[in-house]
Amino acid sequence: MRVANFNGGPAALPLPVLEEAARDMLDWRGTGMSIMENSHRAKDVIKMVEEAEADLRSLLGLNEEWAVIFCQGGASLQFAMLPLNFAGPAGSCDYINTGMWSTKAYKEARICGANPRLAATSEPENFNHIPEAFDFNPEAKYVYITSNNTIRGTQWKRFPSPPAPLVADMSSDFLSRPFEVDKFSLFFAGAQKNVGPAGVTVVALKRSLADRARLEVPSLLSYPIYIKEQSMYNTPPVWAIYISGLTFKWLKNTIGGLEAMAGLNRVKAETLYQALDQSGGFYRGTAQPGSRSLMNVTFHLPDEELTERFKKEAKAAGLDGLGGHRSVGGLRASLYNAITLDEVNKLVEFMREFQRAKG
Amino acid sequence: MRVANFNGGPAALPLPVLEEAARDMLDWRGTGMSIMENSHRAKDVIKMVEEAEADLRSLLGLNEEWAVIFCQGGASLQFAMLPLNFAGPAGSCDYINTGMWSTKAYKEARICGANPRLAATSEPENFNHIPEAFDFNPEAKYVYITSNNTIRGTQWKRFPSPPAPLVADMSSDFLSRPFEVDKFSLFFAGAQKNVGPAGVTVVALKRSLADRARLEVPSLLSYPIYIKEQSMYNTPPVWAIYISGLTFKWLKNTIGGLEAMAGLNRVKAETLYQALDQSGGFYRGTAQPGSRSLMNVTFHLPDEELTERFKKEAKAAGLDGLGGHRSVGGLRASLYNAITLDEVNKLVEFMREFQRAKG
Repeated sequence: MRVANFNGGPAALPLPVLEEAARDMLDWRGTGMSIMENSHRAKDVIKMVEEAEADLRSLLGLNEEWAVIFCQGGASLQFAMLPLNFAGPAGSCDYINTGMWSTKAYKEARICGANPRLAATSEPENFNHIPEAFDFNPEAKYVYITSNNTIRGTQWKRFPSPPAPLVADMSSDFLSRPFEVDKFSLFFAGAQKNVGPAGVTVVALKRSLADRARLEVPSLLSYPIYIKEQSMYNTPPVWAIYISGLTFKWLKNTIGGLEAMAGLNRVKAETLYQALDQSGGFYRGTAQPGSRSLMNVTFHLPDEELTERFKKEAKAAGLDGLGGHRSVGGLRASLYNAITLDEVNKLVEFMREFQRAKG
Repeated sequence: MRVANFNGGPAALPLPVLEEAARDMLDWRGTGMSIMENSHRAKDVIKMVEEAEADLRSLLGLNEEWAVIFCQGGASLQFAMLPLNFAGPAGSCDYINTGMWSTKAYKEARICGANPRLAATSEPENFNHIPEAFDFNPEAKYVYITSNNTIRGTQWKRFPSPPAPLVADMSSDFLSRPFEVDKFSLFFAGAQKNVGPAGVTVVALKRSLADRARLEVPSLLSYPIYIKEQSMYNTPPVWAIYISGLTFKWLKNTIGGLEAMAGLNRVKAETLYQALDQSGGFYRGTAQPGSRSLMNVTFHLPDEELTERFKKEAKAAGLDGLGGHRSVGGLRASLYNAITLDEVNKLVEFMREFQRAKG
């Protein structure tokens, strides 16, 4: 039996995507073999990758000024690729620190020999909000942000307009809402939240930025090589691109695009935040209201024992993945695209029942 | 209908592996979700990764002196990781060049700032054999070989004993035969030949070698970090590890281990080479007999037109993936573990019929 899967990532995928993948496992598109057994240079596979890119471009409204590439190594490899390609030894780059992932990106820039600098941070307040004042260095090669913070449950509502190219880790709210792509020079998303399985990272970058990339970079970490070779410098992670492509199609054709998706996501999140706010302090949200994430709703119960009981009883009721990130504890409901309003309603009902019984 | 899939990679996977993956797509191990939707930190997923590692250790006879890790980025990322971790700026390393992949590895070492050197090469003879004389530099940080050459159809029969740590790209004959692991300090394999789907690279390395790794390396390219974090520094490619794990189990329990697998592979390859050798020169093998690969049988027909007809008619007869690598043309039958003797016999029969009709 399928459960309601509130995992923070890897996370729920749309049921029709999984059903199609299972159905086509032994004979994909009449090739007589699984998609995994097809050559990555086979015309059907190249067409599949091209379709995935075209659907993504259409969802985001990306024109030809943008390149779209598929990398491996998750967001963590992007943490290294950015400084290696665009900052270089002792090169300046600005980071806005809103949680563990941007902290990691900042530290990785130093490991890679660049000279990163904090343009803002909400660390002193336990990362409970998105900063609104910034100290930008106009000489920075780029300004780095994390659009949504899975662990602390915060999300940018309006993106900044720095004096240097803006780059973003969008792993955990990618394709959950439309956004002004032209505020950015590069954005990326590890697939395992809203897009597909772990193992592929979707990257969109302006060709004008790629033209400025340094050349003394390992080939698999060089943005221009991915662009030139259309993500096939070596064998790409075909399965992960395939599942992501099916998700793009589901989002485009079944949901109806990002505007429609954002509407659904707004209702889901409002439903759950309302339940927190109306619980009389039994469920306490951790993010400041103005910075609340529509993807990851983080909250606490009065004590540790109740938290453990909540997780256990929720799981027994078919509501899984509700533990907070291991670095902060508490509870977290991730409401990625594949989560339905029905599932959120089930959760809210469970929460009311739990409070009634234990509160 | 399933075809006989002679692709060079990505390549055929065992049918029972695909069937199990399809069956468990919506509800893996009773979790109520796909393996792709499970958290990589969920205990079932950690157990699955541990089982994959244990089965691999058992297949290869790896003791605790060895670490086993799962990376992304294919062999190409290893091409960079090796010099970055073990050679460093201007560090010496020896390469034995037996084809396009070792050429790429050699060039990548230079891109990464190391000082690679050729200890032997068969390039002047079109890579049609494995060299037998070597000019090793005792100061080299490592000596690099490619155990099997997919493009030229050659394979090492006896591994060398250089005065420096031996490291090998085994992507295309990994787990096809037993070998003396203790001749090596590190070996790796992109999964998409004998092991699983593209998207994961299996790496085994001696802990004593890892202890000598340089620290000024991007985190996702640092062997010690993978070892310390048990391949979970960040989200690993769970699906690709899962399919590889199912293949390890199939190899261990259904086939009966590497000795049994090697026996089957020997018969398959002998059957096909015999067909070439008995064709009166109609089918001409490209590798010197003493260096012939048991995995990739490369051959030519008298002319280009016949080659095209061969591929087309073979495909119509349910024999797919027989084109040579795009860099050399001709024909190639890859006989990876999942290919059955029945399929090889079907191919040989087709070849005889084709020669009778066109020869």
